[in-house]
Amino acid sequence: MPQPNGEADGRVVRVTVWNEFVHERRDDSVRAIYPDGMHAVVGAALERYLGDAVSVRFATLDQPEHGLSEPVLAETDVLTWWGHCAHDEVSDEVVERVVTHVLQGMGLVAMHSAHFSKVFRRLMGTGCGLRWRNADDRELVWSVDPGHPICKGVPIPIVIPRQEMYGEFFDIPQPDELVFISSFTGGEVFRSGCCFVRGRGRIFYFSPGDQEYPVYHNEAVTRVIANAVEWCTPSRRTAAPVLSAPNAPYGWYEGERGLEGI
Amino acid sequence: MPQPNGEADGRVVRVTVWNEFVHERRDDSVRAIYPDGMHAVVGAALERYLGDAVSVRFATLDQPEHGLSEPVLAETDVLTWWGHCAHDEVSDEVVERVVTHVLQGMGLVAMHSAHFSKVFRRLMGTGCGLRWRNADDRELVWSVDPGHPICKGVPIPIVIPRQEMYGEFFDIPQPDELVFISSFTGGEVFRSGCCFVRGRGRIFYFSPGDQEYPVYHNEAVTRVIANAVEWCTPSRRTAAPVLSAPNAPYGWYEGERGLEGI
Amino acid sequence: MPQPNGEADGRVVRVTVWNEFVHERRDDSVRAIYPDGMHAVVGAALERYLGDAVSVRFATLDQPEHGLSEPVLAETDVLTWWGHCAHDEVSDEVVERVVTHVLQGMGLVAMHSAHFSKVFRRLMGTGCGLRWRNADDRELVWSVDPGHPICKGVPIPIVIPRQEMYGEFFDIPQPDELVFISSFTGGEVFRSGCCFVRGRGRIFYFSPGDQEYPVYHNEAVTRVIANAVEWCTPSRRTAAPVLSAPNAPYGWYEGERGLEGI
Amino acid sequence: MPQPNGEADGRVVRVTVWNEFVHERRDDSVRAIYPDGMHAVVGAALERYLGDAVSVRFATLDQPEHGLSEPVLAETDVLTWWGHCAHDEVSDEVVERVVTHVLQGMGLVAMHSAHFSKVFRRLMGTGCGLRWRNADDRELVWSVDPGHPICKGVPIPIVIPRQEMYGEFFDIPQPDELVFISSFTGGEVFRSGCCFVRGRGRIFYFSPGDQEYPVYHNEAVTRVIANAVEWCTPSRRTAAPVLSAPNAPYGWYEGERGLEGI
Repeated sequence: MPQPNGEADGRVVRVTVWNEFVHERRDDSVRAIYPDGMHAVVGAALERYLGDAVSVRFATLDQPEHGLSEPVLAETDVLTWWGHCAHDEVSDEVVERVVTHVLQGMGLVAMHSAHFSKVFRRLMGTGCGLRWRNADDRELVWSVDPGHPICKGVPIPIVIPRQEMYGEFFDIPQPDELVFISSFTGGEVFRSGCCFVRGRGRIFYFSPGDQEYPVYHNEAVTRVIANAVEWCTPSRRTAAPVLSAPNAPYGWYEGERGLEGI
Repeated sequence: MPQPNGEADGRVVRVTVWNEFVHERRDDSVRAIYPDGMHAVVGAALERYLGDAVSVRFATLDQPEHGLSEPVLAETDVLTWWGHCAHDEVSDEVVERVVTHVLQGMGLVAMHSAHFSKVFRRLMGTGCGLRWRNADDRELVWSVDPGHPICKGVPIPIVIPRQEMYGEFFDIPQPDELVFISSFTGGEVFRSGCCFVRGRGRIFYFSPGDQEYPVYHNEAVTRVIANAVEWCTPSRRTAAPVLSAPNAPYGWYEGERGLEGI
Repeated sequence: MPQPNGEADGRVVRVTVWNEFVHERRDDSVRAIYPDGMHAVVGAALERYLGDAVSVRFATLDQPEHGLSEPVLAETDVLTWWGHCAHDEVSDEVVERVVTHVLQGMGLVAMHSAHFSKVFRRLMGTGCGLRWRNADDRELVWSVDPGHPICKGVPIPIVIPRQEMYGEFFDIPQPDELVFISSFTGGEVFRSGCCFVRGRGRIFYFSPGDQEYPVYHNEAVTRVIANAVEWCTPSRRTAAPVLSAPNAPYGWYEGERGLEGI
Repeated sequence: MPQPNGEADGRVVRVTVWNEFVHERRDDSVRAIYPDGMHAVVGAALERYLGDAVSVRFATLDQPEHGLSEPVLAETDVLTWWGHCAHDEVSDEVVERVVTHVLQGMGLVAMHSAHFSKVFRRLMGTGCGLRWRNADDRELVWSVDPGHPICKGVPIPIVIPRQEMYGEFFDIPQPDELVFISSFTGGEVFRSGCCFVRGRGRIFYFSPGDQEYPVYHNEAVTRVIANAVEWCTPSRRTAAPVLSAPNAPYGWYEGERGLEGI
C-alpha cells in the first residue's frame, strides 16, 4: 500500500467515501432514493467494480473531525467527496488537513455540488461558480478523450434521463485533462469530467449526481467514479511539508539520496 | 509590419482570406447566401471590425498556386481558410508551404469544414474526424474562457438558429486553450473554438459556418473571427528552416547574437 | 479604459506596481541597488517600453490598506507584485480583494519571491514551494514558446550573470502556457515564466529578480515584464460576484441580454 | 489483452521494441556499448521491471516491412521507437500504418533521436527541431510532476554523467503533460519527458539515450521507460477508421449501442 514517501504496491486502493449525509436524513424525497445515504451506494459500486483491489470506508460530517482525522487520511489513498447544503459546517482545520494530504499525493474525487465545497475551492483557487436549474433536464455526457482510462468500459454518451442542469461558465482553472462535456435539455453545456494535478495529488471532478435524482444508481456513472478512483491512486506520496522551500547548496543532489532527491 | 525574424509594428495586420469557392459557383442554394463568395463576406466583416488595423486580400483554389505563392505568404500575417468539397485538389506543395509559414509564425484561422483540410490535418497530426448532421439544428456557442481576447464583445451564448451539427468525438489534440463549446438541438456537444500553438504560429479553429446556412452573416460569428485574427497575429516570426537542428558548441549563446540566440 | 463588465479601449493600460518595500529601507546592500525601491525601477521600465500606452502608479505595504483600496483596484488593469520578507503582514482582507479583482479580470504579474505571497498561493491552490540557493549562480532563461507575445523583442537566452537559484520541484499547477525555463550554474532547472488563467484574469509568474542582485536593471528582464503587462491586460472584466451560482430557467439566454448572457 | 474496440484485461502488456539497428552494426564505438543492439538492452530492462506483466518482441529496420506488419501492430499494445541515421529509409506506408494504430489506441514511446523520425514528426505536426552538441555533457533530469506515474521509483534528479546535449527550442506542440526537464553542462535546458495524447493513443517522448553513450545501461533511465510503457498502455482501442466522419441522425445514440456509441 502507498506509504508516505513510498510507492503503491498495486494491491489494494484504500478509499474513504465522504458524504455530508444531511439531505438523506432530513428530506423524504432524498431518503427515498438513498435510504442508507448516497455514500452507501457509491461505496457498494466501488466494491462491485474494483473487487479485491479496493477497500472502502465511510466518513460523514457529523462524526468527530467529520471522520477525517489525521490517521484516517494517512491511510486513505483516494477520498471521494459529496456535499451540498452544509459546506460551511466543515471546519477549516479539516479542510487544510485534506488539502495537505492531496498536495502530498492523496487522490480526490469531487462529485456534483462539491464544486462549492471548501476543499475543492481551496484547491482550485477560483470561485467555482456555475449556472444551474432543477427542472428534470436530460443530461448527455460526452467524452472528448475516449482513450482516457476514466472512460474504460463507459458507453458514450452516458444518458441520464433526469438530472439537475449545471451550465457554463464554470469558474475553474482549465483542467489538465478534460474528459467529459455534458449537454442538457435546455441547450446548456458543462465541463462535467475534469482532471487536475495539484502538488503530488490527482483530482477528478465529476458533475453528475444530485440528491433529488437517482443518478448514483446509474451504472455508467458509478463506473466512471470507479475508474476515477483508479486514476487518482497515488504512485508516489511525500511526507514533506507542503510549504517547504529547502536551501540547496551546490551539489546537494550528488551521492546518496532518496526519492525526489530529498 | 512583421518581418521574418522581426517584430510586428502594431499598425496593420495583413490577412489573406482563402476560400475554396466551389459551392458558391456550383450550387444555387449557396450562391443565394453568398453571391460573391463567402470570402467576400468574411473579408468585409474583418474590415468592419478592425478598420485601418487590417488589410485584406483574397485567394481561391482556382488561382495559380491557389493564390498562395511564396511572396503572398511572406506578406501574410494571418491566413483564414475555408474548404469543404475540394480538399483533395489543394496541391501538396502548397500545403507544405502554408504549414512552413505557420510554423515560422504566420497565424491561421481554420473555419468549419476546414477541419478536414490537408493543412489543418497536417498541423494537428490526428484524423480530425467528427460526427455531423445537416438538419437545421440550433447551435448555441458557449464560452469556457470568457476573459479570453477572442471573446471580446461577443454575446454568450452565441445563438445560431439554423446550422449543421458537428459533434464529438472530434479527433484533435487537446487544444492549448479551449474557448468555445457548442451544443445542438439533438443534444450533441462540440469543441467549437480551439486555440493551438504550433512552432511560432498560432492557430484558431472555429466550427460555426456552413455553405448551406447564412452563418457568416451573423455578427457575433464574424466578431469572433476578427478577434481570432488579432489573437493569431505574430509578434515574432523566424526565417529559420522548420527542420533545423543546429549544432551548438559550448558558449554559443555568449557575445553578440540576434533574437532567439540564432 | 477597461470598465467592469466592459471592454478595453486600446488606449492606456493602468498598472499598479506593488512592492513590499522593506529590504530597500532596511538593508544597505539592497538600497545600493535600488535606492528608490525596486518598484521605481520596474515602473520606469514599463514607461520606457510602453510609453503613452501605460499609466503607472505605485503602492507599498506600509500604506493604508497597503495602497490597494477598492477604488485603486477598480482603476487597475494590471497589478505587479513583489514581496519577500513580509508576506505575513499583508492583511487577509486585502488578499481577498486582490484575488476577487483577478478573478473578475484584473491582470497580475507575480515576480520572484512573490511565489510565496498570500495572493499567489491563494490563486494557485498549491504550496508554491521550491528549492533555492543564494550563491551567485548564473541564470540562463530559455524560451519554450518563442512565438509567445511575452517573448517579443527578448534575446534568448536571457543571460543573468549573478542571481539567486530557484529550482524544481516548484509546487504550482501545470501552467496554462509555459514560456520560460531557466538553468543555473549548479545544474538546477526552473519553470521561470508561467502563464495562468484564473476566472476572467490572466496571471504571469516570472522568477528572475532578487533584492540582492541587480536583476531589474537588466533590460531583457524588464522587457519581459512589459510584455507580460500587455499580455495580462483584460479585454473583458465582470462585476459579477465571484461566488455566484445563478439559477437559469429554460430559455434564460433568449431575447435581450448583455455580454456573457447576464 | 486489449482488443480492437475492447478493453485491457490487466494481465499482459504486449510491447514491440523497434530499433533502427544500424549504428550497432556499423560503428565499433556503438557496438562496444550495445553488442546485441540497444533494443536488446531496452527489452531486457522492460522484462526486469515489469516481469510477467509484459511480453516483449523486437522489430528492426532491415526486416520485411521493418518488422511492423499489420498483424504485428494489431498485437502490439505499446511500441517503443529508436532511430537516428536512417529515418528516411522507413517507408511511408509503414509510417502511416503506425500512425493509424497510435490514433486507434496503441501506445508509443519515442526515444532520443526519434524526435526526427517520420512517425513522431507526423504525429506532432511540427518540425521537431532542437539544438545539440556531442561533447560529453552531464545531463540532469528533473521532474516537474513528481507524482506522475512515470516518476514512480525514479530518483530525482537522474544524473547521466556523459550524454549528448539536446537543447531548446524544441519544436513540438506544448505537451499535454510535461514530466521531465533536463539541464546540461553548457547551461542548456530541454523538455526531456513529454506526454501527448493523440486520438485514442498515448505518446511519451523521452530524450535520454544516445548511441555514443551507455545511457540505456542507466537503471533510472530504463525505469522511466518501463513506467512509460505502463502509462501508454491503452485501456480502450477502436477499430474505426481514423478519417471517419459518420452522419448522425437525430437520436442516433438512443437504444442499443456499443462503446463510444458506435
